[in-house]
Amino acid sequence: MTDKRFYTASGPFTLHQLAETCGAEIGEDVAADALYHDVAPLDDAGAKDVSFFDNKLYAESFAASSAGACLVHPSLAGKAPKGMALLLCGEPYRGYAKVARLFYPAPRLEPVISRSAIIEDTAVVGEGCRVDAGAYISHRVEIGANCHIGANVAIGEGVVIGGACLIKPNATLAYCILGARVTIHAGARIGQDGFGFALGPEGHLKVPQLGRVIIEDDVEIGANATIDRGSGPDTLVGAGTKIDNLVQLAHNVKIGRGCVIVSQVGISGSTNVGDGAIMAGQAGLTGHLTIGAGAKIAAQSGVMRDVEPGEEVGGSPAKPVREWLKGVATLERIVRKKGG
Amino acid sequence: MTDKRFYTASGPFTLHQLAETCGAEIGEDVAADALYHDVAPLDDAGAKDVSFFDNKLYAESFAASSAGACLVHPSLAGKAPKGMALLLCGEPYRGYAKVARLFYPAPRLEPVISRSAIIEDTAVVGEGCRVDAGAYISHRVEIGANCHIGANVAIGEGVVIGGACLIKPNATLAYCILGARVTIHAGARIGQDGFGFALGPEGHLKVPQLGRVIIEDDVEIGANATIDRGSGPDTLVGAGTKIDNLVQLAHNVKIGRGCVIVSQVGISGSTNVGDGAIMAGQAGLTGHLTIGAGAKIAAQSGVMRDVEPGEEVGGSPAKPVREWLKGVATLERIVRKKGG
Amino acid sequence: MTDKRFYTASGPFTLHQLAETCGAEIGEDVAADALYHDVAPLDDAGAKDVSFFDNKLYAESFAASSAGACLVHPSLAGKAPKGMALLLCGEPYRGYAKVARLFYPAPRLEPVISRSAIIEDTAVVGEGCRVDAGAYISHRVEIGANCHIGANVAIGEGVVIGGACLIKPNATLAYCILGARVTIHAGARIGQDGFGFALGPEGHLKVPQLGRVIIEDDVEIGANATIDRGSGPDTLVGAGTKIDNLVQLAHNVKIGRGCVIVSQVGISGSTNVGDGAIMAGQAGLTGHLTIGAGAKIAAQSGVMRDVEPGEEVGGSPAKPVREWLKGVATLERIVRKKGG
Repeated sequence: MTDKRFYTASGPFTLHQLAETCGAEIGEDVAADALYHDVAPLDDAGAKDVSFFDNKLYAESFAASSAGACLVHPSLAGKAPKGMALLLCGEPYRGYAKVARLFYPAPRLEPVISRSAIIEDTAVVGEGCRVDAGAYISHRVEIGANCHIGANVAIGEGVVIGGACLIKPNATLAYCILGARVTIHAGARIGQDGFGFALGPEGHLKVPQLGRVIIEDDVEIGANATIDRGSGPDTLVGAGTKIDNLVQLAHNVKIGRGCVIVSQVGISGSTNVGDGAIMAGQAGLTGHLTIGAGAKIAAQSGVMRDVEPGEEVGGSPAKPVREWLKGVATLERIVRKKGG
Repeated sequence: MTDKRFYTASGPFTLHQLAETCGAEIGEDVAADALYHDVAPLDDAGAKDVSFFDNKLYAESFAASSAGACLVHPSLAGKAPKGMALLLCGEPYRGYAKVARLFYPAPRLEPVISRSAIIEDTAVVGEGCRVDAGAYISHRVEIGANCHIGANVAIGEGVVIGGACLIKPNATLAYCILGARVTIHAGARIGQDGFGFALGPEGHLKVPQLGRVIIEDDVEIGANATIDRGSGPDTLVGAGTKIDNLVQLAHNVKIGRGCVIVSQVGISGSTNVGDGAIMAGQAGLTGHLTIGAGAKIAAQSGVMRDVEPGEEVGGSPAKPVREWLKGVATLERIVRKKGG
Repeated sequence: MTDKRFYTASGPFTLHQLAETCGAEIGEDVAADALYHDVAPLDDAGAKDVSFFDNKLYAESFAASSAGACLVHPSLAGKAPKGMALLLCGEPYRGYAKVARLFYPAPRLEPVISRSAIIEDTAVVGEGCRVDAGAYISHRVEIGANCHIGANVAIGEGVVIGGACLIKPNATLAYCILGARVTIHAGARIGQDGFGFALGPEGHLKVPQLGRVIIEDDVEIGANATIDRGSGPDTLVGAGTKIDNLVQLAHNVKIGRGCVIVSQVGISGSTNVGDGAIMAGQAGLTGHLTIGAGAKIAAQSGVMRDVEPGEEVGGSPAKPVREWLKGVATLERIVRKKGG
């Protein structure tokens, strides 16, 4: 059961409604009109809760769960405890997302402008927006309808924000243009002038950074992530891409659509990442690279060369994952042989 | 001598008082009633200052120090310069901590609420709290007695904070429950919804994150660190654990009691860390792991499997430290043989 | 052409003016009095724009560019497209920096104090300063002339800031002394008490951190970077050093003059870095090391020993770059031989 301080569940919903929501088939011998009141993890769920089983690591929790209903792949249905109502679907985690959104839809935004927010006269704030305490919206900013600007956010001159965006507390936006339904988490820094210096013994000379950050629709940027604006070209994050906390994107980086960039990844200047690429935690990419669509970069990889579309790389310097792991295994074998 | 702009020393204190404070024995031939006025590093300390010697790297500084008194392990007392009053104790650094806290106790909190702080009507702020400029305290927040809420902090709806907590400037708290004597450093982000998406070519679907962050007593969270709230289960940081700057804890991570997590470590979702584990800088842990109590993870390790209680691992992928270092040495030997 | 929402170009300037600005020689057969209106990247530049060619990766863009004028090294002038006016100089990127600064000088600061900024009575703010919405300037702070303090910045008691500094939004300063022309980017945290604990099974005991952060002239600190104050000695960043986003400097670190520290680098306590050293992205250095002047640390290196002046190291644990790369190549060779 969720903490009432923070969450309020809708519902209840019948098993039939849940099945329709997530496109699942209802298992045998269960009442389609039984009511469910909440979602819960396998270990905590009770008779009125819906849960999901998607990761085989948790097979024991599934077998022992008291959840009244559970989303599960048909191939794993046989492991279910007796009496559990099953919602059979090909992608149980995706199905759970839909069910959870049914119980916990995005809260309706109250269109209140805090008395301590400062909005410059030339800024335009769309209908239905909420602006929280201490937010600062600078000159000529344009904010679309139904946005939520969190407490103590700072939005610099000329920034454009599309409709239904969430800018969480203490974030900073400058020199950027955001599409619709973008979420910027707390403390993210978008659009500062990047690390552009002409290095030299007589002093590192700052190079004016004259581009922008373009963030397309449905992007999410994690807490305390940093995205520098372009030096002349723009920095770009393609539609639907999800970026985790503490990620660094340097100037002129272009990220394709639907990419996934996990926490603490760093991407150096002018590197291009194709659609649907996945970069696991703490990976680092040097500058001016081309990463193909659908490429997969393992955690902590150090990528110093182009990566082909669909290629999977790992290690530092990064190479094809199989070669990397073979190298690891080979060295272990040599050590064992000499060791003793 | 500390900078008067920032620090004011209490005292002076006699050698006898200092010895009692830190549980040290006073060395031979020194006046127990001599007065000391301040603490200082070995290189800067003068005749009225107390210093400490704990790291053999600084043996030369110890031998050449003009410090009037010094905490030192009995086994190293012989290296002391002539005339230095010794405070002999088994843990000189711990002893120094106590002496330094005698000279520099935590400053008394002035219970002032800044006129520019915004506190919603339904929030409860305990007795003796100080709330600085621009802080925002949202609906139904509960803050215990004697807390200090720094400038431009944002505290979200329903958050609970125990007594004597320090929330430093520009930090963000949401969906979290803090125990007593917790310190959250500047810019830390606690409780945002984590990286929960059902990935897929038809778009990455956001999964509602319905848990909390529970932070137990005496925890410290570093500047710009990020701790996501649980997806359904909670994210948990056990009592007395110390977390450094720029650390990332993903949703559902459980950290035991008395752990030490050094800067830039990243821990992926649902990983469990036992009591007293130590993770050195930039280490990364994948998700759903179990790290035993007292485990030690070397800097930059990439941990992809469970770690036993007390085990020490290093390298990426991480293995027992001895094997890792043997691998490094073996490869070096092969290179030297072939090289030339 | 730059986005008029964010940038306004000065000019136009004659080719002759541009050549004088950057110390270039004008190529053959071009009109020194032709006017140029803007700078632009090679791919976007038109007949009225000035561009630069400095990285051989972009040779095709250079050969196909429609830029009216271009800075280029004399040795590469032969690759220029017909009709392009050349500005020949030894360091085209540095030259471009100067030209871009001519078109886009730092905007004149309007000396406005926002009505929602809070400045304590005992603070001194110099002439010509601008202080934005929600900034908090605490007791006894001293700020030099012509500084820009961004929105929702928090500056702690006693902090000293030299002339012409830029403190970007949502940054936090405490226990620090800044020279002139320092830029602190959004969300950087300067001066919090570092990770100083006397560890032990009976609890990790906080050690009072009694030093400062000293930042010399012309330093730049990246967004969301964290620099802890010294424990007794100071933490120091030498003049002209440039630090990128999300970098961590622990207590007592000393960085020399003119160093370059790229994003996500972490440097542990009490390490000393000599003048002009360069640390690439995600490198990590353990504590109490001495890194010589002009040393180069490769990306993702794990430095666990001292580095000589001018030495180049890479790998984790770090070793001389040639040895590191030889090790990588040797292991690859062994794998290939055994592989199949």
